[in-house]
Amino acid sequence: MDMSPFEQSESSVRGYCRAYPTVFASASNARQTAEDGTSYIDFFAGAGVLNFGHNNPRMKDAMIAFLQADGVAHSLDTYTTTKRDFIEKFRDVILRPRGMDYRMQFMGPTGTNAVEASLKLARLATGRREIVAFSHGFHGMTLGSLAATANEAFRQWAGVPLTDVVRLPFETAPGGDTAIAEYRAALLDPSSGLTPPAAFLVEALQAEGGVNIATAGWLHQIQDLAREVGALFIIDDIQAGCGRTGDYFSFDGMGLEPDIINLAKGLGGFGTPIAMNLNKPSVDDHWSPGAHTGTFRGQGLSFVAGTVALDYFTDDVLMSEVRAKGAVLRDRLEQIAAAHPDQGWTVRGRGMMQALDTGDGAFAKRVQQAAFEAGLLIGPCGTGGQVIKLIPPLTIPDDDLTQGLDILDKAVATALGVA
Amino acid sequence: MDMSPFEQSESSVRGYCRAYPTVFASASNARQTAEDGTSYIDFFAGAGVLNFGHNNPRMKDAMIAFLQADGVAHSLDTYTTTKRDFIEKFRDVILRPRGMDYRMQFMGPTGTNAVEASLKLARLATGRREIVAFSHGFHGMTLGSLAATANEAFRQWAGVPLTDVVRLPFETAPGGDTAIAEYRAALLDPSSGLTPPAAFLVEALQAEGGVNIATAGWLHQIQDLAREVGALFIIDDIQAGCGRTGDYFSFDGMGLEPDIINLAKGLGGFGTPIAMNLNKPSVDDHWSPGAHTGTFRGQGLSFVAGTVALDYFTDDVLMSEVRAKGAVLRDRLEQIAAAHPDQGWTVRGRGMMQALDTGDGAFAKRVQQAAFEAGLLIGPCGTGGQVIKLIPPLTIPDDDLTQGLDILDKAVATALGVA
Amino acid sequence: MDMSPFEQSESSVRGYCRAYPTVFASASNARQTAEDGTSYIDFFAGAGVLNFGHNNPRMKDAMIAFLQADGVAHSLDTYTTTKRDFIEKFRDVILRPRGMDYRMQFMGPTGTNAVEASLKLARLATGRREIVAFSHGFHGMTLGSLAATANEAFRQWAGVPLTDVVRLPFETAPGGDTAIAEYRAALLDPSSGLTPPAAFLVEALQAEGGVNIATAGWLHQIQDLAREVGALFIIDDIQAGCGRTGDYFSFDGMGLEPDIINLAKGLGGFGTPIAMNLNKPSVDDHWSPGAHTGTFRGQGLSFVAGTVALDYFTDDVLMSEVRAKGAVLRDRLEQIAAAHPDQGWTVRGRGMMQALDTGDGAFAKRVQQAAFEAGLLIGPCGTGGQVIKLIPPLTIPDDDLTQGLDILDKAVATALGVA
Amino acid sequence: MDMSPFEQSESSVRGYCRAYPTVFASASNARQTAEDGTSYIDFFAGAGVLNFGHNNPRMKDAMIAFLQADGVAHSLDTYTTTKRDFIEKFRDVILRPRGMDYRMQFMGPTGTNAVEASLKLARLATGRREIVAFSHGFHGMTLGSLAATANEAFRQWAGVPLTDVVRLPFETAPGGDTAIAEYRAALLDPSSGLTPPAAFLVEALQAEGGVNIATAGWLHQIQDLAREVGALFIIDDIQAGCGRTGDYFSFDGMGLEPDIINLAKGLGGFGTPIAMNLNKPSVDDHWSPGAHTGTFRGQGLSFVAGTVALDYFTDDVLMSEVRAKGAVLRDRLEQIAAAHPDQGWTVRGRGMMQALDTGDGAFAKRVQQAAFEAGLLIGPCGTGGQVIKLIPPLTIPDDDLTQGLDILDKAVATALGVA
Repeated sequence: MDMSPFEQSESSVRGYCRAYPTVFASASNARQTAEDGTSYIDFFAGAGVLNFGHNNPRMKDAMIAFLQADGVAHSLDTYTTTKRDFIEKFRDVILRPRGMDYRMQFMGPTGTNAVEASLKLARLATGRREIVAFSHGFHGMTLGSLAATANEAFRQWAGVPLTDVVRLPFETAPGGDTAIAEYRAALLDPSSGLTPPAAFLVEALQAEGGVNIATAGWLHQIQDLAREVGALFIIDDIQAGCGRTGDYFSFDGMGLEPDIINLAKGLGGFGTPIAMNLNKPSVDDHWSPGAHTGTFRGQGLSFVAGTVALDYFTDDVLMSEVRAKGAVLRDRLEQIAAAHPDQGWTVRGRGMMQALDTGDGAFAKRVQQAAFEAGLLIGPCGTGGQVIKLIPPLTIPDDDLTQGLDILDKAVATALGVA
Repeated sequence: MDMSPFEQSESSVRGYCRAYPTVFASASNARQTAEDGTSYIDFFAGAGVLNFGHNNPRMKDAMIAFLQADGVAHSLDTYTTTKRDFIEKFRDVILRPRGMDYRMQFMGPTGTNAVEASLKLARLATGRREIVAFSHGFHGMTLGSLAATANEAFRQWAGVPLTDVVRLPFETAPGGDTAIAEYRAALLDPSSGLTPPAAFLVEALQAEGGVNIATAGWLHQIQDLAREVGALFIIDDIQAGCGRTGDYFSFDGMGLEPDIINLAKGLGGFGTPIAMNLNKPSVDDHWSPGAHTGTFRGQGLSFVAGTVALDYFTDDVLMSEVRAKGAVLRDRLEQIAAAHPDQGWTVRGRGMMQALDTGDGAFAKRVQQAAFEAGLLIGPCGTGGQVIKLIPPLTIPDDDLTQGLDILDKAVATALGVA
Repeated sequence: MDMSPFEQSESSVRGYCRAYPTVFASASNARQTAEDGTSYIDFFAGAGVLNFGHNNPRMKDAMIAFLQADGVAHSLDTYTTTKRDFIEKFRDVILRPRGMDYRMQFMGPTGTNAVEASLKLARLATGRREIVAFSHGFHGMTLGSLAATANEAFRQWAGVPLTDVVRLPFETAPGGDTAIAEYRAALLDPSSGLTPPAAFLVEALQAEGGVNIATAGWLHQIQDLAREVGALFIIDDIQAGCGRTGDYFSFDGMGLEPDIINLAKGLGGFGTPIAMNLNKPSVDDHWSPGAHTGTFRGQGLSFVAGTVALDYFTDDVLMSEVRAKGAVLRDRLEQIAAAHPDQGWTVRGRGMMQALDTGDGAFAKRVQQAAFEAGLLIGPCGTGGQVIKLIPPLTIPDDDLTQGLDILDKAVATALGVA
Repeated sequence: MDMSPFEQSESSVRGYCRAYPTVFASASNARQTAEDGTSYIDFFAGAGVLNFGHNNPRMKDAMIAFLQADGVAHSLDTYTTTKRDFIEKFRDVILRPRGMDYRMQFMGPTGTNAVEASLKLARLATGRREIVAFSHGFHGMTLGSLAATANEAFRQWAGVPLTDVVRLPFETAPGGDTAIAEYRAALLDPSSGLTPPAAFLVEALQAEGGVNIATAGWLHQIQDLAREVGALFIIDDIQAGCGRTGDYFSFDGMGLEPDIINLAKGLGGFGTPIAMNLNKPSVDDHWSPGAHTGTFRGQGLSFVAGTVALDYFTDDVLMSEVRAKGAVLRDRLEQIAAAHPDQGWTVRGRGMMQALDTGDGAFAKRVQQAAFEAGLLIGPCGTGGQVIKLIPPLTIPDDDLTQGLDILDKAVATALGVA
């Protein structure tokens, strides 16, 4: 396998390729195959994009048919039949059954653009500047989103002050349980030095941040405070949404009504780019036509595959599988943790995002390496990469799931030096 | 044609659909066909994305083959065979013949992400904050890029101060000819209140800004000053690059050596998202692995189609066509301007980006509407939308080109009320 | 009394004159006399400036002698004999007995300039931007100090975003007791979104903020955290220092070692302007000559009177009086509060800064008005002006003290409508 | 002379004392006397404060009388008889004869506080953020004023980005003559990236910046543009005002009507601190009571001496002397420049602010040193301190003036190595 073109001509910013030093040639469902024929079980799924597997057959067929029929692949924000299909199906399958009334906004097809658009809208709608974001939150790499992202490993490269964000601890961080109440007290005190924000931006389940899970109660505290002080309540569901947790939204069933919901990653189904915000109509009305543009807003292939992906949510088949496979993941991680009680590892997650917090980034990296060498792709997350996050495609066959977990088990042992 | 789903469920931020009130169902080369069968000649090409036409057959075939072979559609920044093909071909076809030594950086696949990454790198490489950007420049919608974008129509929605940018007039704006020399004098004067910037960010040919063309001499002034004060020289070639002007880069033949070149739009060939910066190695070395990430960095379909697109640059066939068709566009616009000498219209452009500056946004909008009704898609640009910019696919058949110009001619007359 | 010149020709920004609608003609110790002959007992002392009374006779004599001898009244930061006297005496009387090793920095002679200079020095010394300041803190009106000031009543007029300050609750505010520990946890967590600050800026006793008193333990928490994370620890002792609390510094006896101490108000003794920072030598070394200048840095009259004022600290006579009179103030306020138990009033303070928190700004204003009409000057403070703060000159005669408290007692009754 | 207390206990930020290494003990009119008896002629006048000489006898007498009568030395912004005297006299002597209708605002008694207050008011009055300030401008050291100050020698110590200021070249800097017109063109162009500012802040005669003189025509360009775009026009007359140029205001006779005028330095007459803004009533109305406060706003001694100082402007005696002595200064500097034609020195100034631009800061420093050793105090200014600025008290006796110029002449020769 010739990696020299990358080493010579690709930017030194490249990252994942250093953890997975091979050249991938093809991929199918939960497996990627390298140019040398090695097959890897994929517990990373493109950082949470490939919920429905690599080269999902139904999506692939639809995309090929679309191409053959000369569908409109690129449309900016003009109307196309494929976008209409997507909008109607998303409305019928996702929104209406939940009694949700939202407008769909498409922007530059990356999660960070979705977040940027939502912050812009929140500031327009309120006439305020500051966004409340939380420790361990991840929201993207462009300047507006990066200001909301908490991890210093990303923030340190901004090159300019990251401003207009107020930082509170996430529920699971020290002080997180009382932070909302104390922040509320400060907002009600005209001598606190703080004024009401434009919005609260939060992940109900922090993925990159280390698989940290907020309770419904805490999220309601935020929503209530947002309502009380005239701020918007934004949930970034980019990584945890689209079925990952066993429901379409990670916050399904909590009775929440965010003003804006950010979606991307899994939304296009196939791994082609798309991003979308769901805006409450009263909030969305603050937009003027063309106020937030972007060249690649209208992606025919993503609409086509994304429309097929919505079929998974017309019944409970996939979601019940997610709950079942999630339990398998969870059980196995708890067994691993229990097998090494002196390590103080903890297991947490929801649905098919399950994680082993090893408390040691160097160790987790060794696990990642051992797993890779044995044919399993995993991606550490959290502070210093200490959390081993498992997010296989939701469609992973049981055999691959089991085999992947076996590899992980051994990789942990290898990394501990006990294998 | 049912437009109600858009009207009910799509965000009110949607824009182009208001100028083109129809639903497109298919597209081929320079034509788009609406659901009701109406065929439109496309002189807008997805805002400069579709240089090689809608559903370019060779690209389409390659993409279908890639899908059928279970190629790696989504890869983050791991190595894939398709990315390697793209990198090698870009290096061989574009860089080496020009004696250019650059590294390719892929980021979130939109132009704005490319610009954000380049500003971040410039700030890292220099330890400075400020970016010099120019009046009428367009660089994107996320907060870092928007700060560099000049048009108040976009800036007014930011909701926060847009900072860390120093603004100079573009060469063609009042004071533009002396601005670089005066700015240099200020930088050399320790009491000017100005300190050296991290970078100069400029379009050699401003597309959205109104088809404003910089001379090689002026661009060399900028490059020289950047070198002198230790700043980077960044050319945003997102809309004007990839063959639009009759050369691959809009600044080809000028003897310039930018430190970073931003590319996106036409790079993927087919209209699927991709963005890439070309970084000089000495600059690129300032990146740390993973310092600027993004979920959709590795887009297999865009690499596949983009690799095919590079075939157009292995010989001079397409580029000579561009020059010839560009002359046709230019001649016709000049005839139109000459036919209405009292209007004070001017014509300008390079290659197949040609424009009629009407000096009147409301008039240009009427032209756009009349053209649409007669089956031609055009997009105004510049301040208040007063400039009618023609950017058909480079591959447009001569008949469509002629027919489109005929429609334009009549639309101008209609808008003037003389038809 | 002719007030028309003020009403016609003084700015509408004027404030205290609206609460005290008279024209003062002379003043002596704790009394001010209006043009119409009315005598007022002064429990406000120029917002804490006139610790040693109006027209303190010893200072006045020294100032007259200085003027008659053609002393150097204005000296920028050249050396003068009067400045030398002041420096030597301050060192001998204040610093040495406390084992304090500090350098004295004179700047523009207002408290806000002292704070600005200290923030500048902290940022220089650490290479960091952010300052931790506290709710209810008051630090001045110029842009750098105003950013640290908490009260929205002042912040709202800035006209620009007030940046580079992190806000924590003061010890007595909700969450204040745990705020330092939680902030420490965040600083130790690289995914908290927070990075170490340049300095902590705190008043040991918040005067304008409502007479809020920090404990030694809490201040040590701050000092310890500052040391741990490489930040400076700055105490703003502008209003509470210079003997007000019964010691020279408001934090005397707490075992604290601030890196910078801000002084102003009472420092000049007579009410003429002066401001001074005490900088630890290792911190002060970060200054370059002339890095922070100011026209009125060297004020001969203030040095002369300020040198006389230091005589009050060569023995315990005044300070023991302060403790005794402070007890008188305190007892009387507690009697007043006890007499109206249903009001929920609280009394707090140290030394001769004692306060009645009425919880009701409108009521406190009525008390102020009734007191004025009966010949007593008091100034409400705290959020909405709900706290009646008593800060008479430390040298107030017992009779004036008693008489003033009698007036206050009646004014409270009047304001309650029970008089 | 014992300088050790300064060396041991004063901050290393001290500056002028390094150029004048002595200890001053007394001062009278244009002479300062050191502790060792050495007498110095003062051509620096406290950086432009002591327009009426050190220890001006009439002011001194008034101040002593005021002290003896227990006048109100410190009054915040309550009404006092001395403030009323000052306000009435300033109105009668300065404003009315010029047909000027302004309100007087007193703030923290330093020039930087005056500037800060004016920027705050401009932002309040317009709802805009940005202030246009000019190269070589000096406006103070606190954060808001420092952002407007141009000299990097001061800006570099801010420790935070200095924001919300747009920088244009002063009339005499490269591009200065066309800058206002070009900036106007940009403001009228909605794609320039620039929006209208809150205010233009300019010195009609830049003192610290190197004695740079604006023409009436250029200042009118600014005033006209301010009016056109709804911005305020602020003249900082802190150093050049109060009679220095031969008129009370440096812009007298130009037909200008600034919205705000900043005054300080010479206003108090004696060298005691005071600062004042003159606000047009329509602008001043934007203030709320107490919106900009400050402990030392009401300075009885400064009002008393400042009232006496106004006597100098009831007739033309002093101003005609200023014009005459200014001519003496000017002639002598021109002779000096003419005597060394190969040096390329230039002479410029107005009234009794005259300067020799040597183009060489190191040389000017040697002149300063040689002059000091021969008994003359001068202060270099401008970029790198290359401009020798002569600003003796306006009341300097002719003999001292001549003798001082003789010393300067020799010091120049000494510094050139030709003496």
